[in-house]
Amino acid sequence: MVDKIRRTKIRQILNDGKSGAELCVKGWVRTKRASKNVAFVALNDGSTINNLQLVLDAPKIDEQTLRKISTGASISAIGVLEESQGAGQSVELLVKEIKVLGEADPEEYPLQPKRHSMEFLREIAHLRPRTNTFGAILRVRHEMAYALHTFFHKKGFVNLHSPILTASDAEGAGETFRVTTLDLNNVPKNDEGHVDYKQDFFEKETNLTVSGQLEGELAALAVSEIYTFGPTFRAENSNTTRHLAEFWMVEPEMAFYDLDDNMDLAEEMLKYMVCHALENCKDDLEFLNKRLLEEEKHKPQNQRSEMSLLERLQFVAENDFERISYTDAIEILKRSKPNQKKKFQYLIEEWGADLQSEHERFLVEKHFKKPVILFNYPKDIKAFYMRQNDDGKTVAAMDVLFPGIGEIVGGSQREERLSNLEKRMEEMNIPKDELEWYLDTRKFGTVPHSGYGLGFERMIQFVTGMGNIRDVIPFPRTPGNCEF
Amino acid sequence: MVDKIRRTKIRQILNDGKSGAELCVKGWVRTKRASKNVAFVALNDGSTINNLQLVLDAPKIDEQTLRKISTGASISAIGVLEESQGAGQSVELLVKEIKVLGEADPEEYPLQPKRHSMEFLREIAHLRPRTNTFGAILRVRHEMAYALHTFFHKKGFVNLHSPILTASDAEGAGETFRVTTLDLNNVPKNDEGHVDYKQDFFEKETNLTVSGQLEGELAALAVSEIYTFGPTFRAENSNTTRHLAEFWMVEPEMAFYDLDDNMDLAEEMLKYMVCHALENCKDDLEFLNKRLLEEEKHKPQNQRSEMSLLERLQFVAENDFERISYTDAIEILKRSKPNQKKKFQYLIEEWGADLQSEHERFLVEKHFKKPVILFNYPKDIKAFYMRQNDDGKTVAAMDVLFPGIGEIVGGSQREERLSNLEKRMEEMNIPKDELEWYLDTRKFGTVPHSGYGLGFERMIQFVTGMGNIRDVIPFPRTPGNCEF
Repeated sequence: MVDKIRRTKIRQILNDGKSGAELCVKGWVRTKRASKNVAFVALNDGSTINNLQLVLDAPKIDEQTLRKISTGASISAIGVLEESQGAGQSVELLVKEIKVLGEADPEEYPLQPKRHSMEFLREIAHLRPRTNTFGAILRVRHEMAYALHTFFHKKGFVNLHSPILTASDAEGAGETFRVTTLDLNNVPKNDEGHVDYKQDFFEKETNLTVSGQLEGELAALAVSEIYTFGPTFRAENSNTTRHLAEFWMVEPEMAFYDLDDNMDLAEEMLKYMVCHALENCKDDLEFLNKRLLEEEKHKPQNQRSEMSLLERLQFVAENDFERISYTDAIEILKRSKPNQKKKFQYLIEEWGADLQSEHERFLVEKHFKKPVILFNYPKDIKAFYMRQNDDGKTVAAMDVLFPGIGEIVGGSQREERLSNLEKRMEEMNIPKDELEWYLDTRKFGTVPHSGYGLGFERMIQFVTGMGNIRDVIPFPRTPGNCEF
Repeated sequence: MVDKIRRTKIRQILNDGKSGAELCVKGWVRTKRASKNVAFVALNDGSTINNLQLVLDAPKIDEQTLRKISTGASISAIGVLEESQGAGQSVELLVKEIKVLGEADPEEYPLQPKRHSMEFLREIAHLRPRTNTFGAILRVRHEMAYALHTFFHKKGFVNLHSPILTASDAEGAGETFRVTTLDLNNVPKNDEGHVDYKQDFFEKETNLTVSGQLEGELAALAVSEIYTFGPTFRAENSNTTRHLAEFWMVEPEMAFYDLDDNMDLAEEMLKYMVCHALENCKDDLEFLNKRLLEEEKHKPQNQRSEMSLLERLQFVAENDFERISYTDAIEILKRSKPNQKKKFQYLIEEWGADLQSEHERFLVEKHFKKPVILFNYPKDIKAFYMRQNDDGKTVAAMDVLFPGIGEIVGGSQREERLSNLEKRMEEMNIPKDELEWYLDTRKFGTVPHSGYGLGFERMIQFVTGMGNIRDVIPFPRTPGNCEF
């Protein structure tokens, strides 16, 4: 397919297209309005949420071609750019030649120009990137990934590709997926009647990773600062708007960082991402902002957000996060109205309680009205690898809580002292022999270090205003769903 | 841990440290040389391959501390930067205060300052990032990942996170890993006596992806240009220096690109990566260059490379890749000396033969002496989704071949014509009903498009000169190996 003129992307044309320029555009038809003398086609090529208006001299185009130019069809057009006479766009293309590359039979094509429910679009996840909403989400998601790589690269972090297949279960917590090449119709058994993993690909039980943290620590204790960014897996049977079986996590690990350094980095990173979105995703965010306002119109007043999407992003970018200890947070919650009036589902009665989503949201949305970092949690509700504080009761953990989302980042200073770590593992019944490699980093040249994990999809939810996590990942995996 | 002075990274000190500045450094001891009056410590913090020399006034430091400063120990030191009197470094730190953060018992620490074999280091993959070689590889790998993101971002590509868990097998080829939450000790069976996948997490057979291409095409046919960059899996029982069970792939997919555009992009990308390495990894590449020269000294003359690592990189950056058709390549191979003298293991006798590594290497290393792109392969040795050429015999496929590595990129223009695609799937017995979602993109608004896959580890091998693929990924997964 040799073109006379090289294709120009619509984004570029709308940004700095010169009137009078002869251009070639290619993309998919969003809508067509035709009268006897003229036809207007809104063309989108995915480079921007905005369409380019094509103006067709209808009588000069054969009827069959004109009919094929329907919603979803792909076309290639050559024309001259002009300032637009109509409202709604600054420029339009006066088409001289047009070719239909691929038809989309209006009787069959499921994405007609009307409002489709998110539920319906999830069923056709292979086509939903062609909608305005999902095109915007894909572009914002890309910009957020790029912002992460740029942020860490500038700081001298190494992007570590931690393994997906693992014979260890990082936290001893979380249900994992088993990975195997054994014939499930005929699983080989050993003399004791158990599965004979010696015959499996890796000759041992193997799972999908739930976190790259432990491997990240190994690398941070060699090259100082690393981050992982990759898929992680939980086989939890949770059908909620907040859970996926496959999701992406960002996990930085830093040698020589204490808990304060860790909180500083997390806050700086989150603000960097939000600022990057505000600067680089203007059109998409404006569209998503309108979408959310529209959606909330159908909700009762008390369920609507106090701030619009754009206001929320601006607010996070401009305000310091509130940092308070778990102990102080418990005091606030105990004295809070919903606790006094027994409106919380789980009442806060004493120090040591695990905070529920309702408590986190109260702190963030009602009490402080901004993102909150809670730190120094009771050791009994946190993982074995978190650094023990001198009080004997708490560990140097921290969670970042966001409005509407709840926990978006969880991290800690890591326990770098071998004897403390071993003692805690014994208390929590974590087998040392499976983690000898991890303990080696404490045995040889151990240093204070910290790290955290960011649930990437939750961040995308926050930035796009999408309520269901299944709508911010291209192909969501949930119980019973592994399509496309 | 409150420091009087904030830590400065060694990379920064060596780049632009000012004589007379008071600095705090932290890192791991590579070596120590001590006499009665003075001790020299080579300190590395992973920010660069180069060490900072610490000069210690030995008599002023207590004996116990001095003893603990051994290879692998971690220390924190404050001192004044001075121009170095000795050879081998431009600056050194005259230490005023020093603290051992973590010891590394010389009797136990496996990484003593001597040459360790790659095989040994693979057994302690949790500690090998602390060696010069693996520190360099981690940094170069990071820079290559960053170069990829930057390259595609600048061009307006969207980074698509294609799914890892999939109910489809992209090419119908390649052995896959099964993913399940069924109890392998007691696999549930249905009425026909087969595994009852209805009871599994996704209610159907689920595998680890072998390629994100098909999902990538879905997105490219909506937002024009995408790339995936993530882990992929092959359950092949291959114990070679070229194969991993888990490896990273880059897979761009582009709407409106034909095969020429596809080749242009691949060549531009590979050159961009190599140039980025030459500009941003100077010190690490110089180290790796020396390492390879040293390693090759132990090889017989005829097995040594004609060019050094740095020369090879420079060569790729500066020279156009040779593009020839499969048909022309067969003619060259048929007439070649090794074919005439029956030196090839697989003799080339006729058109249609699948090329082996020996043939690819002959073309690249002996005949053209530069990277080669082969295109228009016989359709019978290529995948169903490649675009059929008008000759009825070939498809618009292309492979990029690199010296020492062989195939580094494989791609094609995709078959965008629904009827051609369906016919080919029938011929190759690929069940259509499992790929209805894929066929939908041809049914609705199909456009000419292309894409390719780059094996990221093979590229890292090329850039670092490492002979075994297990040494360019942090934690290699191969048959029987899933440690750490």
